[in-house]
Amino acid sequence: MSSAHQAVLETFANPHPRREYEIEHVCPEFTSVCPITGQPDFATIRIRYVPDQHCVELKSLKLYLWAFRNEGHFYEDVTNLILDDLVGVMDPIRIEVVGEFNVRGGIHSTVRASHQRPL
Amino acid sequence: MSSAHQAVLETFANPHPRREYEIEHVCPEFTSVCPITGQPDFATIRIRYVPDQHCVELKSLKLYLWAFRNEGHFYEDVTNLILDDLVGVMDPIRIEVVGEFNVRGGIHSTVRASHQRPL
Amino acid sequence: MSSAHQAVLETFANPHPRREYEIEHVCPEFTSVCPITGQPDFATIRIRYVPDQHCVELKSLKLYLWAFRNEGHFYEDVTNLILDDLVGVMDPIRIEVVGEFNVRGGIHSTVRASHQRPL
Amino acid sequence: MSSAHQAVLETFANPHPRREYEIEHVCPEFTSVCPITGQPDFATIRIRYVPDQHCVELKSLKLYLWAFRNEGHFYEDVTNLILDDLVGVMDPIRIEVVGEFNVRGGIHSTVRASHQRPL
Amino acid sequence: MSSAHQAVLETFANPHPRREYEIEHVCPEFTSVCPITGQPDFATIRIRYVPDQHCVELKSLKLYLWAFRNEGHFYEDVTNLILDDLVGVMDPIRIEVVGEFNVRGGIHSTVRASHQRPL
Amino acid sequence: MSSAHQAVLETFANPHPRREYEIEHVCPEFTSVCPITGQPDFATIRIRYVPDQHCVELKSLKLYLWAFRNEGHFYEDVTNLILDDLVGVMDPIRIEVVGEFNVRGGIHSTVRASHQRPL
Amino acid sequence: MSSAHQAVLETFANPHPRREYEIEHVCPEFTSVCPITGQPDFATIRIRYVPDQHCVELKSLKLYLWAFRNEGHFYEDVTNLILDDLVGVMDPIRIEVVGEFNVRGGIHSTVRASHQRPL
Amino acid sequence: MSSAHQAVLETFANPHPRREYEIEHVCPEFTSVCPITGQPDFATIRIRYVPDQHCVELKSLKLYLWAFRNEGHFYEDVTNLILDDLVGVMDPIRIEVVGEFNVRGGIHSTVRASHQRPL
Amino acid sequence: MSSAHQAVLETFANPHPRREYEIEHVCPEFTSVCPITGQPDFATIRIRYVPDQHCVELKSLKLYLWAFRNEGHFYEDVTNLILDDLVGVMDPIRIEVVGEFNVRGGIHSTVRASHQRPL
Amino acid sequence: MSSAHQAVLETFANPHPRREYEIEHVCPEFTSVCPITGQPDFATIRIRYVPDQHCVELKSLKLYLWAFRNEGHFYEDVTNLILDDLVGVMDPIRIEVVGEFNVRGGIHSTVRASHQRPL
Repeated sequence: MSSAHQAVLETFANPHPRREYEIEHVCPEFTSVCPITGQPDFATIRIRYVPDQHCVELKSLKLYLWAFRNEGHFYEDVTNLILDDLVGVMDPIRIEVVGEFNVRGGIHSTVRASHQRPL
Repeated sequence: MSSAHQAVLETFANPHPRREYEIEHVCPEFTSVCPITGQPDFATIRIRYVPDQHCVELKSLKLYLWAFRNEGHFYEDVTNLILDDLVGVMDPIRIEVVGEFNVRGGIHSTVRASHQRPL
Repeated sequence: MSSAHQAVLETFANPHPRREYEIEHVCPEFTSVCPITGQPDFATIRIRYVPDQHCVELKSLKLYLWAFRNEGHFYEDVTNLILDDLVGVMDPIRIEVVGEFNVRGGIHSTVRASHQRPL
Repeated sequence: MSSAHQAVLETFANPHPRREYEIEHVCPEFTSVCPITGQPDFATIRIRYVPDQHCVELKSLKLYLWAFRNEGHFYEDVTNLILDDLVGVMDPIRIEVVGEFNVRGGIHSTVRASHQRPL
Repeated sequence: MSSAHQAVLETFANPHPRREYEIEHVCPEFTSVCPITGQPDFATIRIRYVPDQHCVELKSLKLYLWAFRNEGHFYEDVTNLILDDLVGVMDPIRIEVVGEFNVRGGIHSTVRASHQRPL
Repeated sequence: MSSAHQAVLETFANPHPRREYEIEHVCPEFTSVCPITGQPDFATIRIRYVPDQHCVELKSLKLYLWAFRNEGHFYEDVTNLILDDLVGVMDPIRIEVVGEFNVRGGIHSTVRASHQRPL
Repeated sequence: MSSAHQAVLETFANPHPRREYEIEHVCPEFTSVCPITGQPDFATIRIRYVPDQHCVELKSLKLYLWAFRNEGHFYEDVTNLILDDLVGVMDPIRIEVVGEFNVRGGIHSTVRASHQRPL
Repeated sequence: MSSAHQAVLETFANPHPRREYEIEHVCPEFTSVCPITGQPDFATIRIRYVPDQHCVELKSLKLYLWAFRNEGHFYEDVTNLILDDLVGVMDPIRIEVVGEFNVRGGIHSTVRASHQRPL
Repeated sequence: MSSAHQAVLETFANPHPRREYEIEHVCPEFTSVCPITGQPDFATIRIRYVPDQHCVELKSLKLYLWAFRNEGHFYEDVTNLILDDLVGVMDPIRIEVVGEFNVRGGIHSTVRASHQRPL
Repeated sequence: MSSAHQAVLETFANPHPRREYEIEHVCPEFTSVCPITGQPDFATIRIRYVPDQHCVELKSLKLYLWAFRNEGHFYEDVTNLILDDLVGVMDPIRIEVVGEFNVRGGIHSTVRASHQRPL
């Protein structure tokens, strides 16, 4: 699957493609809207990946995450969608996306999804 | 085994069933009653699972945990019961339930139980 | 005002009545019920006072705070009620009661009420 | 001054009007938009007041703070506006509003505004 | 080996003997006496085990740990003794006992001993 | 009042008697016994004073605090007794003794007593 | 005194000039050079002020603090210079500037300077 | 690849070459400049390696890291460059370089690169 | 009084003598020797002062604090001696010296001494 | 290799030689001198080992670590020397020594060395 915002993501050529190394981006300012109640949700999104030929450009990643601001998304779904979008534009060797959602109804929820490129 | 409250739990269809990913719900507001002394006990319940076809619905999980509020339960038993109930309604690939109970008599107790679906 | 539970509170004679000193009891395990939604609320109750002739007995204080467990109370009201009950049974020189309530709807609320015995 | 959202705020009668006591509401989920760049801003809003005849109702406060979500506001201005709106609907004895804004350009900003009812 | 206090420990039947799960008890209030200088020692005792047929009863564990209060024990020895006593009464599948002793002479000492039941 | 252990306390001449300065000793290893249940209690004792002609000698203070180890004392009483004993042997300009007692029955208690030498 | 960089600072009209309120900007990314050794120094600069007619514009403040990057400055001097520059452009009612400098030679230094407009 | 600053790095003979052991240097004071905007970037650089015949000399490492101060570098690139330079001068058995960059645009980035000498 | 090391302290002219501002130096690496047992003592020394015409030079302060390394000093005495030495060389408007000594015999000690220049 | 201080270390017979268990001693008060500049260095030394027939006696370990106080040692060397000395006197099954050195020149260094007895 891919979200409506995938086209916002831009990449640049991995400057060290011969070495497997890891890049992590942590955004504590993700917000979307509950699809049932319309209430705002808030989360920290953690993205950790080993690039192959492409890295995600930081400013476009920021704009991409903002694009969910006024849309309705479930926790489990939006975390997987972000993973799908990033896999789609970068085709990384390995990638993990974690969404840590603020307390709602006394419960704090976290979703962790990862992708490993087939050998 | 299953508790008297299992029927409170509702599920929804896993939106990304083709990927193994992890969902964690942490509830620091669990309370039940000591079956011997009648005194209130307090715990944080941590639930971490890899869904197969079903995910537990968050609001029903909240109501389910509230249902223990005025019942007598031992630490070791209630943690395993919650695990059994969640396995029963979701049949997840893997699941762990941890109960971290507040200090009683100068001792802090934690119970960790997990279930792996047979291959 | 006084709550229905004031009679649970017991006191003992201040062992050092000639010196103004301070006693603080902190209970992180207070729970009552929202009078509108019926949902459980959780709070830490902090009690700090300068005794005159009477001190509140610790075990009775524990039983007193438990007595609110299944009753409906608003934050602002229950904090003031606890203060009123303690003033009623101890007539302390000074006393402060603070209720720190768990996050609800993304908002964390605290109520601080105090009483100074007229000279 | 008052904002366009003041009408969202509801109040209830102070249940203990004869005692000066303090109520604090902390919302770590405030977000608005930079009026110049259109970028989202994030803040924790802290409200601390001593009520006279009226208290602000918690759910309406949550809806009120959400109402700024897609509007452009400067840090200094929005903190004072929230203070003005709360003074307008509650006429409290004393009130302080603090806005703690997330880091932008390597700088973390906080605005603290307060109001004391004239004697 | 076993200590003179082993008989204080009581057990109850494991309520979920068909599942391997873990129970942890942490007691930050352990105190004994240095066998050489007679000075009090203080430690946190951490007990983590996977029960087979028996679990250690919490109140008896508290009384058991208190029994060392005025006896002389070396760090390395008492940690192993507690492990031996618990193995003796419970015959658990796996168990670890950790003693974290307060600073003496500018040095903080920790002893970790574990037992695995032979297959 | 004074405790049976006051004679254990030794003093030395204040090396800088012409300047008002403050000395603080914090002992996180205080233990005594509940006079009702016989259960061990644990506390951190904080002593802060402005000496006049005498300072309390550190090793004797350690021995003095150990002397309570197997005696029954109430929280409010023992904190005031320690204050009385220290005032008796040092006659300081100002002194505060704070006893922070470990959680019992879900409640954490602190007692703060102070003495100011009359002008 | 004023630094060579004062002209970088821009101001905007205080949007709430009739109320005394406080604005704080914290920049953990200040760096300059030791005038003696040429080694880089690092500091957190905290600015807290009560505006009169003017507030300092955030982006110009960022550029102003960057301007010191390759200049030699002593801790005591640069903190006072920043204060002088801000007083010069804003003429605030009250202002404090704090420079917290990273450890050098095992010593952590902080300089706190403030200005109060004469009545 | 190697940076223009590699020649600043000096080494000394490993004093214990017959044992594989690990050395870690953490520098929280790295700063360079964004190659696109010219804005300063700040990072903590963590270097962890197992030496073979050579160790990096600490003072030269400090001067080496300072040399990037006014140069434009991307996060992904500079972390790998530092790794390349260290591998070049030390030929270590294993080495990891981590760059933890300060928040920009609400996103905190970390790059982790490592090198293992072929057997 | 003054110590044998006062001559090590050097000063420089206060660059902003017309403003009362505060300078703080914190050294967590102070060590001396117990005059009775010969055992090393370790402390954090905090110095906070408002300069008049002179500031203490940082490198000389470091050398000065090192000079106590192998000398026997009591806690109460050495904190006051450092204060006396600093008053002697700087004649500051106000100054406070705090010595926070590591745990010995289970007790953590702090000495706070200050000096205010007579008007 | 072994240091000049190895003879200070004393051992006692392992009281539980038939079980592999772990002992950890952490000393945050290690100090020696830089062999080049003569400046004091400060470190936390962590020792973790699995004893065979011998355990290191705690008081002799304290005296041993003090013996380095006024000697010149490089970080990498002294950590390995302490390891060699402990291996020499105890012949443990496994042992790790970690030296965490205080910040110098803005860099915090840690050395980790370990020894495994050949089978």
